[in-house]
Amino acid sequence: MNFKEKLSKKVKENNSLLCVGLDIDEDKISNMSLLDFNKKIIDETKDIVCAYKINMAFYEVFGKEGYELLEKTMDYIPKDIPIILDGKRNDIGNTAEKYAKSIFETLNADATTVNPYLGSDGIKPFLKYKDKCSFILCRTSNTSAKELQNIKSNGKPLYESIAEKIKDWNKIGCCGAVVGATYPEELKKIREILGNDIPILLPGIGKQGGDLEKSVKYGGENTIIVSARGIIYAKNPREEAVRLRDEINKFR
Amino acid sequence: MNFKEKLSKKVKENNSLLCVGLDIDEDKISNMSLLDFNKKIIDETKDIVCAYKINMAFYEVFGKEGYELLEKTMDYIPKDIPIILDGKRNDIGNTAEKYAKSIFETLNADATTVNPYLGSDGIKPFLKYKDKCSFILCRTSNTSAKELQNIKSNGKPLYESIAEKIKDWNKIGCCGAVVGATYPEELKKIREILGNDIPILLPGIGKQGGDLEKSVKYGGENTIIVSARGIIYAKNPREEAVRLRDEINKFR
Repeated sequence: MNFKEKLSKKVKENNSLLCVGLDIDEDKISNMSLLDFNKKIIDETKDIVCAYKINMAFYEVFGKEGYELLEKTMDYIPKDIPIILDGKRNDIGNTAEKYAKSIFETLNADATTVNPYLGSDGIKPFLKYKDKCSFILCRTSNTSAKELQNIKSNGKPLYESIAEKIKDWNKIGCCGAVVGATYPEELKKIREILGNDIPILLPGIGKQGGDLEKSVKYGGENTIIVSARGIIYAKNPREEAVRLRDEINKFR
Repeated sequence: MNFKEKLSKKVKENNSLLCVGLDIDEDKISNMSLLDFNKKIIDETKDIVCAYKINMAFYEVFGKEGYELLEKTMDYIPKDIPIILDGKRNDIGNTAEKYAKSIFETLNADATTVNPYLGSDGIKPFLKYKDKCSFILCRTSNTSAKELQNIKSNGKPLYESIAEKIKDWNKIGCCGAVVGATYPEELKKIREILGNDIPILLPGIGKQGGDLEKSVKYGGENTIIVSARGIIYAKNPREEAVRLRDEINKFR
Protein backbone atom coordinates (compact mmCIF):
# COMPACT_ATOMS: atom_id res chain seq x y z
CA MET A 1 0.00 0.00 0.00
CA ASN A 2 1.36 3.45 -0.82
CA PHE A 3 1.30 6.43 1.54
CA LYS A 4 -1.92 7.89 0.18
CA GLU A 5 -3.81 4.61 0.46
CA LYS A 6 -2.45 3.94 3.95
CA LEU A 7 -3.42 7.43 5.06
CA SER A 8 -6.85 7.31 3.52
CA LYS A 9 -7.57 3.92 5.15
CA LYS A 10 -6.57 5.22 8.57
CA VAL A 11 -8.52 8.49 8.13
CA LYS A 12 -11.65 6.39 7.55
CA GLU A 13 -11.01 3.75 10.23
CA ASN A 14 -10.32 6.27 12.99
CA ASN A 15 -12.58 8.95 11.49
CA SER A 16 -9.73 11.35 12.01
CA LEU A 17 -7.54 13.98 10.36
CA LEU A 18 -5.46 14.27 13.52
CA CYS A 19 -1.75 13.51 13.46
CA VAL A 20 0.05 13.38 16.80
CA GLY A 21 3.58 14.77 16.83
CA LEU A 22 5.95 12.82 19.08
CA ASP A 23 8.17 15.81 19.98
CA ILE A 24 9.74 14.40 23.11
CA ASP A 25 11.48 16.77 25.48
CA GLU A 26 13.60 15.61 28.40
CA ASP A 27 12.76 18.71 30.39
CA LYS A 28 9.08 17.83 30.32
CA ILE A 29 9.31 14.07 30.91
CA SER A 30 10.76 13.13 34.25
CA ASN A 31 8.88 10.14 35.59
CA MET A 32 9.65 7.57 32.89
CA SER A 33 12.02 6.81 30.01
CA LEU A 34 11.48 8.68 26.77
CA LEU A 35 10.70 5.40 25.00
CA ASP A 36 8.10 4.47 27.60
CA PHE A 37 6.63 7.94 27.25
CA ASN A 38 6.28 7.49 23.48
CA LYS A 39 4.83 4.00 23.92
CA LYS A 40 2.25 5.33 26.35
CA ILE A 41 1.27 8.12 23.94
CA ILE A 42 1.02 5.66 21.05
CA ASP A 43 -1.06 3.20 23.13
CA GLU A 44 -3.42 5.96 24.15
CA THR A 45 -3.86 7.55 20.72
CA LYS A 46 -3.43 4.86 18.05
CA ASP A 47 -7.19 4.48 17.55
CA ILE A 48 -7.65 8.28 17.37
CA VAL A 49 -5.03 9.41 14.83
CA CYS A 50 -4.60 9.20 11.05
CA ALA A 51 -0.79 9.40 11.30
CA TYR A 52 2.15 10.08 13.60
CA LYS A 53 4.74 12.75 12.92
CA ILE A 54 8.22 12.43 14.36
CA ASN A 55 10.44 15.49 14.26
CA MET A 56 14.03 14.27 13.98
CA ALA A 57 15.51 17.25 15.86
CA PHE A 58 14.08 15.99 19.16
CA TYR A 59 15.88 12.67 18.71
CA GLU A 60 19.15 13.84 17.13
CA VAL A 61 19.83 15.92 20.19
CA PHE A 62 20.49 12.69 22.15
CA GLY A 63 23.08 11.45 19.67
CA LYS A 64 23.36 7.70 19.07
CA GLU A 65 20.88 6.93 21.86
CA GLY A 66 18.43 9.31 20.19
CA TYR A 67 18.80 7.42 16.96
CA GLU A 68 17.94 4.18 18.75
CA LEU A 69 14.99 5.83 20.44
CA LEU A 70 13.76 7.00 17.04
CA GLU A 71 14.03 3.48 15.60
CA LYS A 72 12.33 1.87 18.59
CA THR A 73 9.54 4.45 18.55
CA MET A 74 8.96 3.82 14.83
CA ASP A 75 8.96 0.06 15.46
CA TYR A 76 6.32 0.44 18.15
CA ILE A 77 3.89 2.33 15.92
CA PRO A 78 1.34 -0.11 14.43
CA LYS A 79 2.35 -0.90 10.84
CA ASP A 80 -0.95 0.36 9.38
CA ILE A 81 -0.49 3.90 10.72
CA PRO A 82 1.58 6.17 8.43
CA ILE A 83 4.72 7.71 9.92
CA ILE A 84 5.80 11.15 8.74
CA LEU A 85 9.47 11.68 9.54
CA ASP A 86 9.81 15.45 9.80
CA GLY A 87 13.46 16.17 8.94
CA LYS A 88 13.19 19.22 6.64
CA ARG A 89 16.26 17.82 4.89
CA ASN A 90 17.67 19.42 1.76
CA ASP A 91 20.84 19.36 -0.30
CA ILE A 92 22.08 19.26 -3.89
CA GLY A 93 21.14 16.26 -6.03
CA ASN A 94 23.65 13.53 -5.21
CA THR A 95 23.50 14.41 -1.51
CA ALA A 96 19.71 14.71 -1.41
CA GLU A 97 19.70 11.14 -2.73
CA LYS A 98 21.45 10.04 0.47
CA TYR A 99 18.91 11.87 2.65
CA ALA A 100 16.03 10.30 0.71
CA LYS A 101 17.62 6.87 1.14
CA SER A 102 18.16 7.48 4.88
CA ILE A 103 14.54 8.34 5.44
CA PHE A 104 12.75 6.02 3.03
CA GLU A 105 15.05 2.99 3.12
CA THR A 106 17.25 3.02 6.25
CA LEU A 107 14.41 4.26 8.46
CA ASN A 108 11.55 3.14 6.20
CA ALA A 109 9.28 6.11 6.96
CA ASP A 110 6.10 6.57 4.93
CA ALA A 111 6.56 10.29 4.36
CA THR A 112 8.92 13.14 5.09
CA THR A 113 9.29 16.92 4.93
CA VAL A 114 11.72 18.66 2.55
CA ASN A 115 12.97 22.25 2.33
CA PRO A 116 12.71 23.72 -1.20
CA TYR A 117 15.40 26.46 -1.03
CA LEU A 118 17.71 24.53 -3.41
CA GLY A 119 15.04 24.05 -6.07
CA SER A 120 14.09 20.94 -8.07
CA ASP A 121 17.54 19.26 -7.84
CA GLY A 122 17.07 18.86 -4.12
CA ILE A 123 13.47 17.60 -4.35
CA LYS A 124 13.57 15.07 -7.18
CA PRO A 125 15.64 12.39 -5.42
CA PHE A 126 12.86 12.17 -2.81
CA LEU A 127 10.17 11.79 -5.47
CA LYS A 128 11.78 8.64 -6.85
CA TYR A 129 10.21 6.83 -3.93
CA LYS A 130 6.79 6.54 -5.55
CA ASP A 131 5.08 4.78 -2.63
CA LYS A 132 6.22 7.42 -0.14
CA CYS A 133 5.27 11.09 0.12
CA SER A 134 7.41 14.23 0.41
CA PHE A 135 5.84 17.27 2.00
CA ILE A 136 7.58 20.41 0.78
CA LEU A 137 7.79 23.41 3.12
CA CYS A 138 5.48 25.94 1.51
CA ARG A 139 4.21 28.44 4.11
CA THR A 140 5.50 27.50 7.54
CA SER A 141 3.73 28.24 10.84
CA ASN A 142 6.38 30.46 12.48
CA THR A 143 6.30 34.25 12.78
CA SER A 144 9.39 34.97 10.68
CA ALA A 145 8.25 32.67 7.85
CA LYS A 146 7.13 35.77 5.99
CA GLU A 147 10.70 37.12 5.69
CA LEU A 148 11.37 34.82 2.75
CA GLN A 149 8.14 33.02 2.02
CA ASN A 150 6.05 36.15 1.42
CA ILE A 151 8.61 37.93 -0.76
CA LYS A 152 6.73 39.10 -3.80
CA SER A 153 7.94 38.54 -7.31
CA ASN A 154 5.72 39.64 -10.21
CA GLY A 155 3.03 40.42 -7.66
CA LYS A 156 3.02 36.87 -6.33
CA PRO A 157 4.37 35.78 -2.93
CA LEU A 158 7.05 33.07 -2.98
CA TYR A 159 4.84 30.48 -1.22
CA GLU A 160 2.43 30.62 -4.16
CA SER A 161 5.27 29.89 -6.58
CA ILE A 162 6.27 26.97 -4.34
CA ALA A 163 2.69 25.68 -4.37
CA GLU A 164 2.79 25.77 -8.19
CA LYS A 165 6.06 23.87 -8.16
CA ILE A 166 4.58 21.28 -5.79
CA LYS A 167 1.77 20.75 -8.27
CA ASP A 168 4.40 20.08 -10.96
CA TRP A 169 6.60 17.92 -8.75
CA ASN A 170 3.56 15.84 -7.85
CA LYS A 171 3.55 14.60 -11.45
CA ILE A 172 6.89 12.88 -10.74
CA GLY A 173 6.05 11.35 -7.36
CA CYS A 174 3.77 11.93 -4.38
CA CYS A 175 4.34 15.47 -3.19
CA GLY A 176 2.53 17.36 -0.44
CA ALA A 177 2.75 20.83 1.09
CA VAL A 178 3.54 21.98 4.61
CA VAL A 179 1.31 24.92 5.49
CA GLY A 180 0.98 26.42 8.97
CA ALA A 181 -2.44 26.64 10.62
CA THR A 182 -1.39 30.07 11.80
CA TYR A 183 -1.91 31.52 8.29
CA PRO A 184 -5.43 30.51 7.14
CA GLU A 185 -5.65 32.95 4.21
CA GLU A 186 -2.41 31.62 2.80
CA LEU A 187 -3.73 28.07 3.31
CA LYS A 188 -6.87 28.94 1.33
CA LYS A 189 -4.83 30.28 -1.58
CA ILE A 190 -2.42 27.32 -1.51
CA ARG A 191 -5.28 24.80 -1.55
CA GLU A 192 -6.75 26.59 -4.57
CA ILE A 193 -3.43 26.25 -6.40
CA LEU A 194 -2.82 22.62 -5.38
CA GLY A 195 -6.31 21.29 -6.04
CA ASN A 196 -7.74 18.63 -3.74
CA ASP A 197 -5.53 15.66 -4.64
CA ILE A 198 -2.33 16.90 -3.02
CA PRO A 199 -2.07 16.34 0.75
CA ILE A 200 -1.36 19.23 3.09
CA LEU A 201 0.53 18.71 6.35
CA LEU A 202 -0.70 21.36 8.73
CA PRO A 203 1.16 22.10 11.97
CA GLY A 204 0.48 25.15 14.13
CA ILE A 205 -2.66 24.08 15.98
CA GLY A 206 -2.51 24.21 19.77
CA LYS A 207 0.51 25.88 21.38
CA GLN A 208 1.23 27.87 18.23
CA GLY A 209 -2.32 29.29 18.18
CA GLY A 210 -3.49 28.28 14.69
CA ASP A 211 -7.15 28.70 13.70
CA LEU A 212 -8.77 25.25 13.68
CA GLU A 213 -12.10 26.05 12.03
CA LYS A 214 -10.52 27.92 9.12
CA SER A 215 -7.78 25.30 8.81
CA VAL A 216 -10.31 22.51 8.34
CA LYS A 217 -12.54 24.59 6.10
CA TYR A 218 -9.77 25.87 3.83
CA GLY A 219 -7.53 22.79 3.93
CA GLY A 220 -10.33 20.32 3.19
CA GLU A 221 -10.38 16.53 3.58
CA ASN A 222 -6.85 15.94 2.28
CA THR A 223 -5.28 17.76 5.23
CA ILE A 224 -3.30 16.18 8.04
CA ILE A 225 -3.69 18.31 11.15
CA VAL A 226 -0.74 18.05 13.50
CA SER A 227 -0.72 18.62 17.23
CA ALA A 228 2.35 17.74 19.25
CA ARG A 229 3.00 19.51 22.57
CA GLY A 230 -0.71 20.29 23.02
CA ILE A 231 -1.49 16.56 23.18
CA ILE A 232 1.55 14.70 24.43
CA TYR A 233 2.07 16.99 27.43
CA ALA A 234 -1.65 17.31 28.23
CA LYS A 235 -2.78 16.03 31.64
CA ASN A 236 -4.68 13.32 29.82
CA PRO A 237 -3.25 12.86 26.31
CA ARG A 238 -5.99 10.47 25.17
CA GLU A 239 -8.79 12.79 26.27
CA GLU A 240 -7.06 15.72 24.57
CA ALA A 241 -6.57 13.74 21.36
CA VAL A 242 -10.21 12.65 21.34
CA ARG A 243 -11.35 16.20 22.03
CA LEU A 244 -9.25 17.64 19.19
CA ARG A 245 -10.17 14.87 16.75
CA ASP A 246 -13.86 15.49 17.47
CA GLU A 247 -13.48 19.26 17.23
CA ILE A 248 -11.82 18.86 13.83
CA ASN A 249 -14.68 16.59 12.77
CA LYS A 250 -17.25 19.23 13.69
CA PHE A 251 -15.80 21.44 10.95
CA ARG A 252 -15.40 18.72 8.26
CA MET B 1 39.49 29.61 20.88
CA ASN B 2 36.43 30.45 18.80
CA PHE B 3 35.77 29.25 15.25
CA LYS B 4 37.21 32.32 13.57
CA GLU B 5 40.43 32.23 15.58
CA LYS B 6 40.82 28.49 15.06
CA LEU B 7 40.24 28.88 11.32
CA SER B 8 42.59 31.82 10.97
CA LYS B 9 45.36 29.99 12.84
CA LYS B 10 45.05 26.94 10.58
CA VAL B 11 44.86 29.08 7.41
CA LYS B 12 48.23 30.59 8.39
CA GLU B 13 49.88 27.38 9.63
CA ASN B 14 49.01 25.35 6.55
CA ASN B 15 49.04 28.36 4.21
CA SER B 16 45.71 27.11 2.94
CA LEU B 17 42.11 28.07 2.17
CA LEU B 18 41.33 24.48 1.22
CA CYS B 19 38.69 22.52 3.11
CA VAL B 20 38.40 18.81 2.37
CA GLY B 21 34.87 17.38 2.36
CA LEU B 22 34.66 13.86 3.78
CA ASP B 23 31.71 12.75 1.63
CA ILE B 24 32.17 9.02 1.94
CA ASP B 25 30.39 6.76 -0.48
CA GLU B 26 30.21 3.00 -0.09
CA ASP B 27 30.03 2.48 -3.84
CA LYS B 28 33.41 4.13 -4.29
CA ILE B 29 35.27 2.61 -1.32
CA SER B 30 35.65 -1.14 -1.52
CA ASN B 31 39.09 -2.04 -0.22
CA MET B 32 38.84 -0.79 3.38
CA SER B 33 36.33 0.25 6.05
CA LEU B 34 34.79 3.70 5.72
CA LEU B 35 36.43 4.76 8.98
CA ASP B 36 39.86 3.64 7.77
CA PHE B 37 39.23 5.50 4.53
CA ASN B 38 38.47 8.72 6.44
CA LYS B 39 41.50 8.21 8.70
CA LYS B 40 43.73 7.78 5.67
CA ILE B 41 42.37 10.97 4.04
CA ILE B 42 42.83 12.89 7.31
CA ASP B 43 46.40 11.57 7.77
CA GLU B 44 47.27 12.56 4.23
CA THR B 45 45.73 16.03 4.24
CA LYS B 46 45.83 17.39 7.80
CA ASP B 47 48.87 19.59 7.07
CA ILE B 48 47.31 20.88 3.84
CA VAL B 49 43.79 21.98 4.88
CA CYS B 50 42.32 24.88 6.83
CA ALA B 51 39.23 22.85 7.82
CA TYR B 52 37.27 19.66 7.22
CA LYS B 53 33.65 19.58 6.12
CA ILE B 54 31.48 16.60 6.93
CA ASN B 55 28.16 16.33 5.13
CA MET B 56 25.76 14.51 7.47
CA ALA B 57 23.74 12.93 4.64
CA PHE B 58 26.59 10.58 3.77
CA TYR B 59 26.61 9.25 7.35
CA GLU B 60 22.88 9.27 8.14
CA VAL B 61 22.32 6.87 5.28
CA PHE B 62 24.02 4.13 7.36
CA GLY B 63 21.71 4.64 10.32
CA LYS B 64 23.14 4.07 13.83
CA GLU B 65 26.43 2.78 12.42
CA GLY B 66 26.70 5.94 10.36
CA TYR B 67 26.28 8.01 13.47
CA GLU B 68 29.14 6.14 15.12
CA LEU B 69 31.26 6.58 12.02
CA LEU B 70 30.56 10.31 12.14
CA GLU B 71 31.59 10.52 15.80
CA LYS B 72 34.74 8.46 15.28
CA THR B 73 35.72 10.50 12.23
CA MET B 74 35.26 13.75 14.17
CA ASP B 75 37.32 12.31 17.04
CA TYR B 76 40.14 11.46 14.68
CA ILE B 77 40.44 14.97 13.26
CA PRO B 78 43.21 16.88 15.12
CA LYS B 79 41.59 19.22 17.69
CA ASP B 80 43.14 22.34 16.16
CA ILE B 81 41.48 21.86 12.76
CA PRO B 82 37.95 23.31 12.56
CA ILE B 83 35.14 20.89 11.66
CA ILE B 84 32.20 22.19 9.66
CA LEU B 85 29.24 19.85 10.07
CA ASP B 86 27.21 20.37 6.93
CA GLY B 87 23.65 19.48 7.89
CA LYS B 88 21.61 22.27 6.25
CA ARG B 89 19.23 21.88 9.19
CA ASN B 90 16.28 24.19 9.70
CA ASP B 91 13.06 24.35 11.70
CA ILE B 92 10.92 26.72 13.75
CA GLY B 93 12.45 28.25 16.88
CA ASN B 94 12.04 25.66 19.65
CA THR B 95 12.94 22.86 17.26
CA ALA B 96 15.88 24.71 15.69
CA GLU B 97 17.20 24.94 19.27
CA LYS B 98 17.40 21.15 19.36
CA TYR B 99 19.26 21.02 16.05
CA ALA B 100 21.72 23.67 17.24
CA LYS B 101 22.26 21.69 20.44
CA SER B 102 22.76 18.43 18.49
CA ILE B 103 25.45 19.96 16.32
CA PHE B 104 27.22 22.30 18.73
CA GLU B 105 26.87 20.35 22.00
CA THR B 106 26.13 16.67 21.33
CA LEU B 107 28.54 16.51 18.38
CA ASN B 108 30.65 19.53 19.36
CA ALA B 109 31.27 20.75 15.80
CA ASP B 110 32.94 24.13 15.25
CA ALA B 111 30.56 25.26 12.54
CA THR B 112 27.50 24.17 10.62
CA THR B 113 25.30 25.05 7.65
CA VAL B 114 21.71 26.27 8.04
CA ASN B 115 18.87 26.72 5.54
CA PRO B 116 17.19 30.16 5.77
CA TYR B 117 13.74 29.37 4.28
CA LEU B 118 12.04 29.75 7.70
CA GLY B 119 13.53 33.19 8.39
CA SER B 120 15.18 34.55 11.54
CA ASP B 121 13.30 32.27 13.99
CA GLY B 122 15.09 29.29 12.53
CA ILE B 123 18.52 30.94 12.51
CA LYS B 124 18.75 32.64 15.90
CA PRO B 125 18.98 29.49 18.05
CA PHE B 126 22.20 28.62 16.18
CA LEU B 127 23.67 32.08 16.77
CA LYS B 128 23.45 31.66 20.55
CA TYR B 129 26.59 29.56 20.27
CA LYS B 130 28.95 32.52 20.08
CA ASP B 131 32.15 30.49 19.70
CA LYS B 132 30.76 28.50 16.80
CA CYS B 133 29.82 29.65 13.32
CA SER B 134 26.65 29.12 11.26
CA PHE B 135 26.95 29.29 7.49
CA ILE B 136 23.60 30.22 5.97
CA LEU B 137 22.73 28.90 2.51
CA CYS B 138 22.81 31.99 0.33
CA ARG B 139 23.47 31.06 -3.31
CA THR B 140 24.03 27.32 -3.61
CA SER B 141 26.18 25.60 -6.25
CA ASN B 142 23.51 23.48 -7.94
CA THR B 143 21.81 24.18 -11.29
CA SER B 144 18.29 24.60 -9.94
CA ALA B 145 19.38 26.96 -7.16
CA LYS B 146 18.16 29.83 -9.31
CA GLU B 147 14.52 28.66 -9.15
CA LEU B 148 14.14 30.23 -5.70
CA GLN B 149 17.38 32.00 -4.93
CA ASN B 150 17.32 34.28 -8.00
CA ILE B 151 13.68 35.26 -7.68
CA LYS B 152 13.61 39.03 -7.95
CA SER B 153 11.77 41.21 -5.54
CA ASN B 154 12.03 45.00 -5.95
CA GLY B 155 14.67 44.38 -8.60
CA LYS B 156 16.86 42.42 -6.19
CA PRO B 157 17.44 38.64 -6.32
CA LEU B 158 16.57 36.69 -3.17
CA TYR B 159 20.21 35.71 -2.50
CA GLU B 160 21.11 39.37 -2.12
CA SER B 161 18.39 39.82 0.48
CA ILE B 162 19.74 36.75 2.27
CA ALA B 163 23.27 38.23 2.19
CA GLU B 164 21.87 41.40 3.81
CA LYS B 165 20.18 39.29 6.48
CA ILE B 166 23.43 37.40 7.12
CA LYS B 167 25.11 40.73 7.72
CA ASP B 168 22.44 41.53 10.33
CA TRP B 169 22.46 38.07 11.89
CA ASN B 170 26.22 38.31 12.23
CA LYS B 171 25.63 41.03 14.84
CA ILE B 172 24.02 38.37 17.08
CA GLY B 173 26.59 35.61 16.61
CA CYS B 174 29.12 34.35 14.07
CA CYS B 175 27.32 33.95 10.79
CA GLY B 176 28.77 32.99 7.41
CA ALA B 177 27.39 32.44 3.91
CA VAL B 178 27.35 29.38 1.66
CA VAL B 179 28.00 30.46 -1.92
CA GLY B 180 28.69 28.08 -4.81
CA ALA B 181 31.89 28.43 -6.84
CA THR B 182 29.75 27.76 -9.89
CA TYR B 183 28.32 31.30 -9.73
CA PRO B 184 31.26 33.76 -9.56
CA GLU B 185 29.26 36.91 -10.39
CA GLU B 186 26.84 36.16 -7.58
CA LEU B 187 29.81 35.52 -5.28
CA LYS B 188 31.25 38.94 -6.16
CA LYS B 189 27.99 40.68 -5.35
CA ILE B 190 27.51 38.72 -2.10
CA ARG B 191 31.05 39.54 -0.93
CA GLU B 192 30.35 43.25 -1.59
CA ILE B 193 27.24 43.05 0.59
CA LEU B 194 28.85 41.03 3.38
CA GLY B 195 32.12 42.98 3.64
CA ASN B 196 35.33 41.09 4.39
CA ASP B 197 34.70 40.04 7.99
CA ILE B 198 32.05 37.41 7.30
CA PRO B 199 33.37 34.00 6.21
CA ILE B 200 32.14 32.39 3.00
CA LEU B 201 31.95 28.62 2.63
CA LEU B 202 32.43 27.86 -1.04
CA PRO B 203 31.64 24.42 -2.45
CA GLY B 204 31.42 23.70 -6.19
CA ILE B 205 35.09 23.43 -7.11
CA GLY B 206 36.17 20.22 -8.85
CA LYS B 207 33.45 17.79 -9.96
CA GLN B 208 30.85 20.56 -10.00
CA GLY B 209 32.98 22.69 -12.33
CA GLY B 210 33.27 25.95 -10.36
CA ASP B 211 35.70 28.68 -11.47
CA LEU B 212 38.68 28.65 -9.10
CA GLU B 213 40.43 31.86 -10.15
CA LYS B 214 37.28 33.96 -9.92
CA SER B 215 36.26 32.23 -6.69
CA VAL B 216 39.51 33.18 -4.98
CA LYS B 217 39.54 36.68 -6.46
CA TYR B 218 35.93 37.51 -5.65
CA GLY B 219 35.66 35.60 -2.37
CA GLY B 220 38.89 36.99 -0.91
CA GLU B 221 40.90 35.75 2.07
CA ASN B 222 37.92 34.96 4.29
CA THR B 223 36.73 32.17 2.01
CA ILE B 224 36.84 28.45 2.75
CA ILE B 225 37.14 26.57 -0.52
CA VAL B 226 35.66 23.08 -0.36
CA SER B 227 36.60 20.10 -2.46
CA ALA B 228 35.24 16.68 -1.59
CA ARG B 229 34.94 14.03 -4.32
CA GLY B 230 37.71 15.65 -6.39
CA ILE B 231 40.20 15.00 -3.59
CA ILE B 232 39.07 12.01 -1.58
CA TYR B 233 38.52 9.79 -4.62
CA ALA B 234 41.62 11.01 -6.46
CA LYS B 235 44.29 8.41 -7.26
CA ASN B 236 46.57 10.22 -4.80
CA PRO B 237 44.48 12.34 -2.43
CA ARG B 238 47.48 14.05 -0.85
CA GLU B 239 48.95 15.09 -4.18
CA GLU B 240 45.59 16.37 -5.35
CA ALA B 241 45.09 18.33 -2.10
CA VAL B 242 48.57 19.87 -2.39
CA ARG B 243 47.94 20.71 -6.04
CA LEU B 244 44.62 22.40 -5.31
CA ARG B 245 45.93 24.23 -2.22
CA ASP B 246 48.82 25.59 -4.30
CA GLU B 247 46.60 26.51 -7.22
CA ILE B 248 44.33 28.44 -4.84
CA ASN B 249 47.39 30.18 -3.41
CA LYS B 250 48.49 31.33 -6.87
CA PHE B 251 45.34 33.45 -7.04
CA ARG B 252 45.43 34.83 -3.48
